Amino acid sequence: MVNRSPFRPSVADLHPYVPGEQPQGGKFIKLNTNENPYPPADAVIEAIRAAAIGLQRYPDPTASLFRRAAAEVLGLPGPEWILAGNGSDEILTILVRAMVGEGELLRLPYPSYILYRTLAEIQGARWEQVPFSPQWDLNPAFGAAAEGLRLAFLPNPNSPSGTILAPAEVWEIAQQLPCPLVVDEAYADFAPGNCLQLVRQSDKILVTRTLSKAYGLAGLRFGFVVAQPQLIAELGKLKDSYNCDALSIAGATAAIRGQVWLRENCQKIIATRETMATGLRGLGFRVTPSSANFLWCTHEEKSHRQLYEQLKARQILVRYMDFPGWGDGLRISVGTDAQGDALLSTLGSIVT
Amino acid sequence: MVNRSPFRPSVADLHPYVPGEQPQGGKFIKLNTNENPYPPADAVIEAIRAAAIGLQRYPDPTASLFRRAAAEVLGLPGPEWILAGNGSDEILTILVRAMVGEGELLRLPYPSYILYRTLAEIQGARWEQVPFSPQWDLNPAFGAAAEGLRLAFLPNPNSPSGTILAPAEVWEIAQQLPCPLVVDEAYADFAPGNCLQLVRQSDKILVTRTLSKAYGLAGLRFGFVVAQPQLIAELGKLKDSYNCDALSIAGATAAIRGQVWLRENCQKIIATRETMATGLRGLGFRVTPSSANFLWCTHEEKSHRQLYEQLKARQILVRYMDFPGWGDGLRISVGTDAQGDALLSTLGSIVT
Repeated sequence: MVNRSPFRPSVADLHPYVPGEQPQGGKFIKLNTNENPYPPADAVIEAIRAAAIGLQRYPDPTASLFRRAAAEVLGLPGPEWILAGNGSDEILTILVRAMVGEGELLRLPYPSYILYRTLAEIQGARWEQVPFSPQWDLNPAFGAAAEGLRLAFLPNPNSPSGTILAPAEVWEIAQQLPCPLVVDEAYADFAPGNCLQLVRQSDKILVTRTLSKAYGLAGLRFGFVVAQPQLIAELGKLKDSYNCDALSIAGATAAIRGQVWLRENCQKIIATRETMATGLRGLGFRVTPSSANFLWCTHEEKSHRQLYEQLKARQILVRYMDFPGWGDGLRISVGTDAQGDALLSTLGSIVT
Repeated sequence: MVNRSPFRPSVADLHPYVPGEQPQGGKFIKLNTNENPYPPADAVIEAIRAAAIGLQRYPDPTASLFRRAAAEVLGLPGPEWILAGNGSDEILTILVRAMVGEGELLRLPYPSYILYRTLAEIQGARWEQVPFSPQWDLNPAFGAAAEGLRLAFLPNPNSPSGTILAPAEVWEIAQQLPCPLVVDEAYADFAPGNCLQLVRQSDKILVTRTLSKAYGLAGLRFGFVVAQPQLIAELGKLKDSYNCDALSIAGATAAIRGQVWLRENCQKIIATRETMATGLRGLGFRVTPSSANFLWCTHEEKSHRQLYEQLKARQILVRYMDFPGWGDGLRISVGTDAQGDALLSTLGSIVT
């Protein structure tokens, strides 16, 4: 018999990241996990269906077709600037495993994506949260040196706030930091700017992207990191040999080529976002101006948790988020216009 | 500027596992990565194509449909005995991250799957290889205690040999070991027996499976681990939230339900395996009796590396494998009858 736990202490103590509810049945209006309310482009579905032939063979280990297409579309010098992964979550996992050893330090802003912390804990590493101000300004301490600091994550736009730092501010932070800065651009397609070109100017800046949000492919699991080639080569040593499957490579390649579709899709979502924001403010919510596909909403008089429960009882799922020491609120994904209207009218009947 | 490498020393020094060649063009007869020569069942392809609708939503985080189907088919008490992953490589990664800390020890037999060692190195852990005898008997030292020993991997059937230990022998080893034993059953569908039922009798035995080989789904990336529920719950804390995509969950569920297809497919491959083994022996090769979908072949008079090169020049890919301190040889995947015939006639023209 094994007398002690077979798990590392850091794992036994772990409180893992819990993703938003994914009800597999029911008729919920799902505004809780920042999914795209629209299906992906037809060309993507066709590419996936065509790739369902030949699955007995292993996929291309380095997703070359995707990387070539993405480099072209994103204005990068070549595919050697890109590493593809099984969702950007896998990319974040690889980054932490590559750079942060047991007892070393990972920095993240707070509130932001809770997974970063979980990844540090799995690794047996330390993590340090630098709080945002109530107005979502980033504390300058984010760029400071610290003992054992090996990596910093900056989601930009941030979640749950949807706020964004300009590339010049990101550049400044990266220059101050004694370690690489990963700019998590999961939501950048909805934003007025991004940090992709900074990668060409500094080996301290890495940018991660996902196809889960703006491309409408959360179910496909495909993300990537953009960094200087010598960093990509090292990071590639950590990935599983065949980390992306043949179907997702085919779908992702078709998706990244569809930049016209992407722009149109994002414009629709941005338009709905602004309508929803206006409506929510009309219902007495404070709504943070968002550069993403979700809205961070607080209400001075109502219990956020209760609002979440009341909406859920009416078949509308939003995300209740509580950040101890900082505050709580509702993160509401932008849906279709009809979903936005349903949310506003239901919320209206609850809060008034 | 970052003056030191941003990578952990264990990563900077890493010589990653190099998978078999995957030429994306050309007309090779590919007998080098133990893929199934036959496409998956039609029902699998249909299930995948049907699942290409709704990809804007995240997949089921725990692949429930697959786990329920697999538990039923494999005679397990329930889905809580199964954790699904993005290929069994991801499962192996999770196991090492969960159980082996920096400086701790992982044990593996030698020669076996080189990835185990790579996973220990990424982790900054130590690894210890226990050699097989030239007749592929496992040294009893494999079960011995050792300082810091936290996990042992036993591929069964083993690669590159295709040899197998009976469940009673595996049980004995697990009883001796002071740590959990992972029985990697990637090739068990081709074998006369397996260790699945041992999992019910001991929390020291975990069994991993893949759909890449016998189910003909290498391109889909789907594997799983079977273990007692309290272990599955802990391991689940380490996986990415959505580690399996919607397409692979749908395809894997259809595949595991196709046990009649599986048996027939394996019988065809086993029949070809025996024909190929007889033919190779007729050409002067020593061929290890195999319980998998490949054959380990050595030739007393010929250079194995040269044979590999000569076959490659003739558009036939096999795997040349060199295990320092142990020896080298050719690992030849079992193809269709026609591919087996082509291999034998081409090899015949080379060696005679």
